[in-house]
Amino acid sequence: MFKFSAVSAQIKYKKREDLGIIYSNDPFYCTGVFTKNKVKAAPVIYSQNMLKKYKLFKALIVNSGNANACTGKDGLEDCFLIEDKIRKIFKIDKQFGILQASTGVIGVKLPVERIISKLDKLKENLDEKNLEIFARAIMTTDTFPKITKYQSNEFKIIGVAKGAGMIHPNMATMLSFIMTNADLPITLIDSIFKNIVNKTFNSISVDGDTSTNDSVFLLIKPEVKVSKSRFKSSLFEICHNLSKMIVKDGEGSTKLIKIIVKNAPSTNAAKTICEKIATSPLVKTAFFGNDPNWGRILCAIGNSNIEVDPEKIELYFGDFKVVENGKEYSKFNENEVQNYLRENREVGITVDLNLGNKRWEYYTCDFSYDYVRINAEYRT
Amino acid sequence: MFKFSAVSAQIKYKKREDLGIIYSNDPFYCTGVFTKNKVKAAPVIYSQNMLKKYKLFKALIVNSGNANACTGKDGLEDCFLIEDKIRKIFKIDKQFGILQASTGVIGVKLPVERIISKLDKLKENLDEKNLEIFARAIMTTDTFPKITKYQSNEFKIIGVAKGAGMIHPNMATMLSFIMTNADLPITLIDSIFKNIVNKTFNSISVDGDTSTNDSVFLLIKPEVKVSKSRFKSSLFEICHNLSKMIVKDGEGSTKLIKIIVKNAPSTNAAKTICEKIATSPLVKTAFFGNDPNWGRILCAIGNSNIEVDPEKIELYFGDFKVVENGKEYSKFNENEVQNYLRENREVGITVDLNLGNKRWEYYTCDFSYDYVRINAEYRT
Repeated sequence: MFKFSAVSAQIKYKKREDLGIIYSNDPFYCTGVFTKNKVKAAPVIYSQNMLKKYKLFKALIVNSGNANACTGKDGLEDCFLIEDKIRKIFKIDKQFGILQASTGVIGVKLPVERIISKLDKLKENLDEKNLEIFARAIMTTDTFPKITKYQSNEFKIIGVAKGAGMIHPNMATMLSFIMTNADLPITLIDSIFKNIVNKTFNSISVDGDTSTNDSVFLLIKPEVKVSKSRFKSSLFEICHNLSKMIVKDGEGSTKLIKIIVKNAPSTNAAKTICEKIATSPLVKTAFFGNDPNWGRILCAIGNSNIEVDPEKIELYFGDFKVVENGKEYSKFNENEVQNYLRENREVGITVDLNLGNKRWEYYTCDFSYDYVRINAEYRT
Repeated sequence: MFKFSAVSAQIKYKKREDLGIIYSNDPFYCTGVFTKNKVKAAPVIYSQNMLKKYKLFKALIVNSGNANACTGKDGLEDCFLIEDKIRKIFKIDKQFGILQASTGVIGVKLPVERIISKLDKLKENLDEKNLEIFARAIMTTDTFPKITKYQSNEFKIIGVAKGAGMIHPNMATMLSFIMTNADLPITLIDSIFKNIVNKTFNSISVDGDTSTNDSVFLLIKPEVKVSKSRFKSSLFEICHNLSKMIVKDGEGSTKLIKIIVKNAPSTNAAKTICEKIATSPLVKTAFFGNDPNWGRILCAIGNSNIEVDPEKIELYFGDFKVVENGKEYSKFNENEVQNYLRENREVGITVDLNLGNKRWEYYTCDFSYDYVRINAEYRT
């Protein structure tokens, strides 16, 4: 369906691929969701403009090791320079758009010449089988490439992502590229996509920082008719899997934590409380210590600015009830819950507010020594 | 002016004082600022009611090791029980109020009997000289007692505080007791006090978590006439010193970081941006690594949801200009700034938005391995 390629352009990393492209001879449609950070990287501004200007696209180029963020007007000019060269080398007509994404260190000028000098090789290597090499090329502090696929009969969705830090709702340095051959009205796909992104990529947190570069692209080559409901459920699965992989690979994390807030007065209230729990350093360090410290969770709920009735709150770690009527459950067995936390890589907490019937799900990870190590040493 | 006392009630800690009292035979006025967390500890609810009900007070009792938070109705009943016993032992008439504060682990019933059994001894030990023993008794993860004094002629302010974690605006588990003999209208003192608390205790962050117990009390025994401006400036100094001490003692911190945002469109914009920088784990870990990673600071500014013009931003580490027009300053010397960070225990950054004339100051600390260690092991 799409072809992939990746090369080493020595943008920052040595001895590994750091420049990748998704290319299709037949043009494709595209929709995207981008960071809400007011300081946007040049490729984000560039791609947002492209999506406004063009209907059909032929290529999407991505580099790791340099975010091309906080690089001023030069940053955007570098994007245009790269576009020009891609048009020449890949022979892409002015009627089709080109998309760009970057991830890596902020504030350093993109080594454009090194990128441009590798475009020929990038073209030579194009192959449908190169998805994994592409997925590896876009990694930064990631420890594994993130790919997920859905296929039944002729209908396909392929998703690839990167991200391990600066991860927080509204697209944390998280890049994701999802491709499908579903044939549905583009406006319908667009609205389904944005709704799903809100529930998946925008419902995860590693460290509470929304990056300057976050982007999720959905590339569509309409070939196979599919029902709306089937498309929706399979796209959800793809986005859900990718977001979980990102949190699981959260910098230094030892645990994937699923947070459910239920019986909330509104969906927004449920989401806000999820987010407050998911970003509390005290909650996250307690999970690292396998400590069922429910007091910190109640404290985080109280910090969400949502009106709750503390005396109605119930809290579960996995299936273990820990809080009832806002205080410690009489049958709470601390050792039992500690063992549950110690023995599982994926754990869950459920907050029952007993105030309504709305719910939200959210993923986060714990805060470990390695998170500090990785981020205190990232540049030096 | 006031008498202090502290004893060991073995609430959680062994072999140290963990129960303290401030007492005065002559009644005093009192005003307070409390946590905005929706989950409030029993002593916070208790003291807020007391301040509504009474005009004059005679005692303020504090314990460490147990927050008496998330303890349901029992928690509040325990406060009433303690009040009753204090009234009897200290012979305090029903016309005067009593105040209470607690700090420590959330969700564990207060060992009321152990507290009550020590009230006699608490009374015996009362002495004006016992301020430091009192300051030590209220410590939890603090590494040093926090006391500051202002005195000129007959006018005095004495401040004591505790706090090292769960520190974030709106009173992080931070307790502070300030005493003065200033004779000014109580309503005027109250408004000066609340304004100063906003600029000091509510402009510091250790970990972004606002606790269930945060309280700052100002105890007033009007004895010495003083001008409004002199009272204001000396109270500011006291609150400013105490807040700085709290951040300096931030759990595991190796650096005190002063953040100034200037030339902002509004005071609120300046404060919001300060807060976003102060709570970013990526910014805080970079400081721990002595890494002048200005990109993360610009990313945090962009995440504040305040409309900024990225291309106008200037950023300084100490006196070193690092960012001009939103990108790396041409004369930025990374080694020089690294040395500045490495060699100083107190460092500063200044963000110039070039968008107005409002400013705010804020204190935070770095995020270290020890922060994780302390909080992953706090209970176990």
